[in-house]
Formats: sequence, structure tokens, C-alpha cells
Amino acid sequence: MNVVVLAGGLGGSRFARALTETLPPTDVTVVGNVGDDLEVAGLRVSPDLDTILYTLAGVLDEAQGWGRAGETWNARDAATELGGETWFQLGDRDLGLHLARTEALRRGEPLSTITARFARRFGVEATLLPATDNRLRTWIATPAGEFPFQEWFVRRGHRDEVDAVRFEGADQARSAPGLLDALDAADLIAIAPSNPFVSIGPILAIAEIRDALEHRRVPAVAVSPLIGGRTVRGPADRMLQRLAGGTAPAQVTDCYKGLIDALVIDEADAHEEAGIQTIVTRTLMTDAEARRRLAEAVLGIPV
Amino acid sequence: MNVVVLAGGLGGSRFARALTETLPPTDVTVVGNVGDDLEVAGLRVSPDLDTILYTLAGVLDEAQGWGRAGETWNARDAATELGGETWFQLGDRDLGLHLARTEALRRGEPLSTITARFARRFGVEATLLPATDNRLRTWIATPAGEFPFQEWFVRRGHRDEVDAVRFEGADQARSAPGLLDALDAADLIAIAPSNPFVSIGPILAIAEIRDALEHRRVPAVAVSPLIGGRTVRGPADRMLQRLAGGTAPAQVTDCYKGLIDALVIDEADAHEEAGIQTIVTRTLMTDAEARRRLAEAVLGIPV
Repeated sequence: MNVVVLAGGLGGSRFARALTETLPPTDVTVVGNVGDDLEVAGLRVSPDLDTILYTLAGVLDEAQGWGRAGETWNARDAATELGGETWFQLGDRDLGLHLARTEALRRGEPLSTITARFARRFGVEATLLPATDNRLRTWIATPAGEFPFQEWFVRRGHRDEVDAVRFEGADQARSAPGLLDALDAADLIAIAPSNPFVSIGPILAIAEIRDALEHRRVPAVAVSPLIGGRTVRGPADRMLQRLAGGTAPAQVTDCYKGLIDALVIDEADAHEEAGIQTIVTRTLMTDAEARRRLAEAVLGIPV
Repeated sequence: MNVVVLAGGLGGSRFARALTETLPPTDVTVVGNVGDDLEVAGLRVSPDLDTILYTLAGVLDEAQGWGRAGETWNARDAATELGGETWFQLGDRDLGLHLARTEALRRGEPLSTITARFARRFGVEATLLPATDNRLRTWIATPAGEFPFQEWFVRRGHRDEVDAVRFEGADQARSAPGLLDALDAADLIAIAPSNPFVSIGPILAIAEIRDALEHRRVPAVAVSPLIGGRTVRGPADRMLQRLAGGTAPAQVTDCYKGLIDALVIDEADAHEEAGIQTIVTRTLMTDAEARRRLAEAVLGIPV
């Protein structure tokens, strides 16, 4: 059973892992958000893609939710001592990846090829694709001004309320090579329990991908990131409230209008009307058992 | 007694240290070579400048002769595992400096300002100046083709014989701010026992600096990098043989024709005719005592 999953950061990577633990991993294609990519001193950093990669490779710092387990911080500490800007923290091993990626990009290798190579080197059997090889950047409009995603998210601690989200470069962006084929060959399309606006939004802002989902011939199912009207982590609930008018499953459905056939919601939200077919389960991926339960709920969904 | 010293890598940095240990360090201005600078995945690396900085700060890996003492290599190892090019090795703490410098350069801060700030942060009291804030790059012509300096030196292990040395950008390069003033205020100008072609050559390729030396009103003295017709380290002896026709003090003098008043040579070369006033001493800087002896020989030179 071939599954394509659209995924953002931590929630997305955990759900991608759930699928690869439940299906043969080679049946799973993970499409990662690149709207939150940034350059640090010219090094290309792809936080969501890397969180997915590290998660699938089993090297994620699980407690922290980003970066590599057993990481060292000597580069950051040296930069700090020299007065460097280190608000976007890069561990030493993580830096090694950014060096290798940046060097390959500068040689002209596309991000998708580099990502596939890194996944192979890490022994990841699932297919990991960036949504696009083109430049696509998420901007966040707030009462304090418009900021590049990571400026708002990390540097300003996503404290500013979000008035709008803009995807620079989305108009020109093509889906990464192989992505449309993977969607075409899929038996199920899944949307991970990621932030609809800034994790999944940038992927769906690419016309080719949105079109493919709109014209899908197989079921598509999203997992709501809400548990009792709140998100486990991150600002998705505040954004749903402000941008979609509420923090119930119906607002998640609204974000994916015409693109999904069903929504997986948590037991804590079972009393809410979702405006679409729902399947109710526990969605918090606390351990392997919880991941498997969620993956099976998604994969078994009758639509 | 104000001294300006032109310096390249390890020999230059040890000699600069010798001067700062012998004079009040605030009396010493070190002009570092930047012709061997390179970009690694877009990060600006200044190997000679950093070796001087680390030496004066007391954090150089003395055994290795480059990089920082007690360094870790997790970024390099991670990059290697991912198939990255790691022929130019960057330690984790060293990377932190390159990150801080590159970020500052991208913000528009000149290399000289950044270098001064780093020196201050490291507690270095001597003034450390890059020869220029402009782009100046050393190219090495060999029978196998012309290579950027570090490609020849590190990647190819400086095995190719050198037919010629070219300084890209030297025509347009201005001396770093404060450099001409330092030369003007100097009581003595010194040239460190560095490679005349690729360590000192790029500095002297800047017209403002060469002119200032040609029209100096104070003594200038160079320290020969030769000991018994050979260099302690690096390819300077082979280059002197091939490009200047011999490996005796006279060939070193030829490299600095019109720019120096005396040459400090090692006892092992005392029998050779230098073609200029010489002072003979032991030039190998094995320890603090040896450094002091050499510095005093240079500072006491009657010209």
C-alpha cells in the first residue's frame, strides 16, 4: 500500500515515522515542508526536512524535538564568544549536514537529490522529498511587521499574533522530481498532524501539488493537530483561532477544503462537528504503540 | 618601540608571538596574509589570519600547527558520513569563528573590523590586521594547471612544482584601514620567517603596502625562513629553488629587493653570502627562550 504523506516538523516527522513502522518503509513517501528553510551565514538550513530525516534515521534529539541526539555545541559556543548571532542554534553534527548540503547546492545539485542521498547514507528506506527544489519561503505578517518564518518562530519565539502567511516563490515553484509520480502511484494520501498554515500550507501553495490533491483518485486523509482544541506544541491553535475562527476540527477541515476526504481527530475532540467524515482515535504519539494505533487508524480509514 | 610585522601562517604567527612576548604587545601590529583565504560551503575561512589569532590568543593546536587546541571534529565527521567534501578540515570551534565572521561579512562589516573584534574577544592586545579588506586570492600555476592556493596546498598536498604565483584582485586591493598609519608610526618594519612567495608575496602585491615599504623612513628587516638551506615546514625551499634559483639567504634577499635593510639568518646559513647586511642567530622558535632570542636579534638590529 503506497502512501504519500505531507509533513512539517516534529508532529509531521513522528507521524511519518508511525507510517514507516506500520507499513514497509519503502511504501512510504514523505513530502517535507521547505518554507521554513533559512540561511545561517550562507549555510542552507532546512529545519523541517532535517527533523524528518533525523526522526526516520533514529538520531533525533527526542527530548528537544529538533537536532541530533548526543549533539555537541562547540561551534555555537565559539561563535557566541566571538559575538556571533546564534539565535538559530546549530549543533556541531547538524552543522556537518548543513555544510555538506550547502556545498552540494553550490555545486548545482538539487535539494531533492541531496536529500535522497543523505537519507540513503542514514539508512532511511522511506522516500524523503522536499516539496520543491525551488526557493519557497514562508513570511509571517504580524502587528509588529512581516518576518521570515524563523525570525518569527525562533528569534521572536512566535509570540506575535499572525495576521497572514505568505509563501514567497510559491507561484514559480515546481514540485520536486518524483513527487507527482508518487502522488499518482499512491493508494492513500495523508496529511500529518502538522501546523496547517506554516507546515502544510507551504506544500499546498505549490500549484502542481494542490492540483494533484484536488484531482486525486484515491482517498486523502488529514490528521488534526488538535487535542481538546489545543496543539501539543507550537502556535497552530492560536493561528487557527485567529485565522480560521476557532480551534475545533471544523477549522482544520476548512484549511484542507476540497483536498481531503476524512479527518482523523482525537478522542478529546470527538464531540465537535468536523464538517467531514471523521475517525476518532488517540492522536498523541507518545510511544511506538501510540504511533502504530494512529497509523492504523489512518491506513484503515474507509472512504 | 612600534613594530609592524608582515606575517603568513605558522612561522609568521610564532614570530608575531615572539614580538608580543618581547615588546609591550600594544606596540605590535601584525599584518596577516589573506591570499590563502577560501570559501568552504560559502563560509569565509582565513587560515593565516586565524593561525595568527589563535597563536596570539594562546589557543592554537601547537602540535598540529593550525586550528584550535582541544578541538572536536563532529561537524567534519557528520559531513564525511553524508559524502560531503572535507579535504579542508574545519574543527567545531573553528567553524564557530567562521560562522561568526561570515555572518558579519554578509552584514557588510569589513574583515579588518571583524578581525579586530575577534582579537579583542580573545584578549589579544596586539593589533591584528588583514593585509586588505578587499578580495585578494593567491593562484598557483603548476605543470598540472593553475589552482587556488588551498587546492594546491591542502587538497593536492603542495606536491606540484610551482611555476608561478598570481594574486587575483591585488591590482584593486587597498591596504586595510589603519595599516598605512601603522607603517607610518613604526620604528621598525619586520617581515616574518614566512614563505616569501605565498605568505608575504600577497601582502607585498598590494601597491599601497609595497610603496610604503619602498619609501620607508625606518629600518625594515626580514627573517629568513631557511635553516641550512631548507625550511622547517612547507614548500618555501622548493619554491625558492625553482622560482629564485637557489635556497640560500641571497634568494630570500632577492624576494624582498628594495624593501628590507637587513636579513636575519640562521647560524646554519652563516657561511652564505646574503647580498645584504645580515645578523646571524638561531631562528628556530622551539620555545619561549628561542622566540625571545630571535625577537631581540630583530629588534636590536643596527641599520
